[in-house]
Amino acid sequence: MAICVVRAAPMNGIGFEILARDGTARLGRVTTAHGPIETPAFMPVGTAATVKAMTPDSVAATGARIVLGNTYHLMLRPGAERIAALGGLHRFMNWPHAILTDSGGFQVMSLAALRKITEAGVAFRSHLDGSAHLLTPERSVEVQHLLGADITMSFDECTPFPVTREAVESSMELSMRWAERSRAAFAPRPGHGIFGIVQGGVHPDLRQRSAGRLVEIGFDGYAIGGLAIGEGQATTFAMVEASMPSLPQDRPRYLMGVGKPGDIVGAVRRGVDMFDCVIPTRSGRTGQAFTRAGTLNLRNARHADDPAPLDPDCRCPACTGFSRAYLHHLTKAGEILASMLLTRHNLTYYADLMADLRAAIAQGKLSEFAEAIASV
Amino acid sequence: MAICVVRAAPMNGIGFEILARDGTARLGRVTTAHGPIETPAFMPVGTAATVKAMTPDSVAATGARIVLGNTYHLMLRPGAERIAALGGLHRFMNWPHAILTDSGGFQVMSLAALRKITEAGVAFRSHLDGSAHLLTPERSVEVQHLLGADITMSFDECTPFPVTREAVESSMELSMRWAERSRAAFAPRPGHGIFGIVQGGVHPDLRQRSAGRLVEIGFDGYAIGGLAIGEGQATTFAMVEASMPSLPQDRPRYLMGVGKPGDIVGAVRRGVDMFDCVIPTRSGRTGQAFTRAGTLNLRNARHADDPAPLDPDCRCPACTGFSRAYLHHLTKAGEILASMLLTRHNLTYYADLMADLRAAIAQGKLSEFAEAIASV
Repeated sequence: MAICVVRAAPMNGIGFEILARDGTARLGRVTTAHGPIETPAFMPVGTAATVKAMTPDSVAATGARIVLGNTYHLMLRPGAERIAALGGLHRFMNWPHAILTDSGGFQVMSLAALRKITEAGVAFRSHLDGSAHLLTPERSVEVQHLLGADITMSFDECTPFPVTREAVESSMELSMRWAERSRAAFAPRPGHGIFGIVQGGVHPDLRQRSAGRLVEIGFDGYAIGGLAIGEGQATTFAMVEASMPSLPQDRPRYLMGVGKPGDIVGAVRRGVDMFDCVIPTRSGRTGQAFTRAGTLNLRNARHADDPAPLDPDCRCPACTGFSRAYLHHLTKAGEILASMLLTRHNLTYYADLMADLRAAIAQGKLSEFAEAIASV
Repeated sequence: MAICVVRAAPMNGIGFEILARDGTARLGRVTTAHGPIETPAFMPVGTAATVKAMTPDSVAATGARIVLGNTYHLMLRPGAERIAALGGLHRFMNWPHAILTDSGGFQVMSLAALRKITEAGVAFRSHLDGSAHLLTPERSVEVQHLLGADITMSFDECTPFPVTREAVESSMELSMRWAERSRAAFAPRPGHGIFGIVQGGVHPDLRQRSAGRLVEIGFDGYAIGGLAIGEGQATTFAMVEASMPSLPQDRPRYLMGVGKPGDIVGAVRRGVDMFDCVIPTRSGRTGQAFTRAGTLNLRNARHADDPAPLDPDCRCPACTGFSRAYLHHLTKAGEILASMLLTRHNLTYYADLMADLRAAIAQGKLSEFAEAIASV
């Protein structure tokens, strides 16, 4: 006699639950093939299959449960097919939690040489060795599949800023056609999803049109792209506000490349769930530290004799083990340990900020929390 | 009624016990104010108050219980008085175990500008900012006291190689006068000691005379200096052999700046107890890895697709968490994590080599062990 076990077919895509709301802000949980992510969440940037100056253990110790990998960098070095043959990006970089990969669209515009944009995609030469490549929506999605991304981003064109409205509109329309091709190229599977990216520059009506078009196509989540590139915080927030009404409530929202703590707090209040930014990691490598009392430049001579920790309320090893005087010394001496400790601290600061935001939403106290942060 | 508690006065100096012998090799234990060190021991180099690319926790996790700090670097930046005001070097760098500081003699010869050697000491200008300094035996010992070294090294002149016998002899005699002044300047205290340094270049009779002179002065331990600077392994070993008979059995012996694994094994067989060298740390930062199957250059393209760990028998995070392909990628991409992981691996390799040497001495199997190592 055969025993029949009936299992519900696993759901394609990623899960998203909203656990609490405070105004337009949401406390949520994204569920991926590599575990859950409590939102609002910050994603440390792991460009070349490493969050710079951090071991994966130490990234996880900050509280991060998702990192961002850069498709452009990884397809050029070490190569997407190579990473796939080695078992995928999670195994390659020994990161057991979730990974979101960008589409390569932003970096191909900012880093590649001799790039030529056509309806098909972007032809370019590698900034590393001059080799010729073609990145299309289909190839971008394929690369992200080879990497094993839990969250794939659709391929888009990133328009520079400032630029004419006509150029923004034409670029956004191209990105929407590429979004449709990205979605079609994406192989649905359990625990993996693809996000569309709202474009439209600093024009609210273009943002609305873009968001509406993406929702027609249908994505697992929606990103807001092409911001934090010089337009200023007020405009960034205005574009978030313009995009939000068109986006479904039951899907996560990701504001790309943002930002400083105040930018994140403001965007969370406007309903954003996910963020990535190089600021905490890059700042750490140049001697900058975020603290509850403001930002410190460790290169400054006023820290040379200071026995106090960076931030007495921080749980990270840089704060529990060392003085500002020591961190100043390491920074001045150009020691690798300066980058290691300050990156660890800044990512802990960001992770704790997100945890505090989540707690504030759960308690319905986001406004008070945001005002307390802003007064620093 | 008064209760009188009689306590034995704590012994000045550092302790040293010999637990087993195998030929002229010794298994021992050095006891300092910051804990015991099982010998033969390797001391990672922490030049500027950090073992480069390592947190103190990760240094201790390799098994190291003593690190070396560089007097020359620390007196110039951040300054010995500053470190003393901040609670000493142990607290400054958050290293709870023992520290040996060199005297500054070697670095002042190799790094400082406009140096002028007189009977008094060495006048020089800082390689960092051109400021004028005078390093004497008394100032060297004072700086090491300010740093809080468990083991202080007497100030000596390091003669270059090759050089005439007359120059070596004259330099050695100067170093012996400086050794006497260093010893006199050293304040004896429990758990802290001062080592003399045998000089004499590649001349066995000068080495013997130097060792004899140091023993007359009387030190807590004896170092053999001025070697591993181009004379070749056979000559290094010959100079160790020439120095040993004059040195007391009951005091630790330290071969400065040595070396590669084979150098260490050979010196342990000749009765050396302590070593320091930049090779494992510096090699790690240039993509070199020591393994039980030989040395690997991770920059080599043959590792690009290799899913195997660096060394399947190694317990370190670089070997348990990552492939050669990943380490190759990090090295080629110039990622800080390459330096972190390869330094961790190399220091683990050295710590395990020392543990294996200690086990072999305890079992009376040092010859077999040394032959097995040499056949790799």
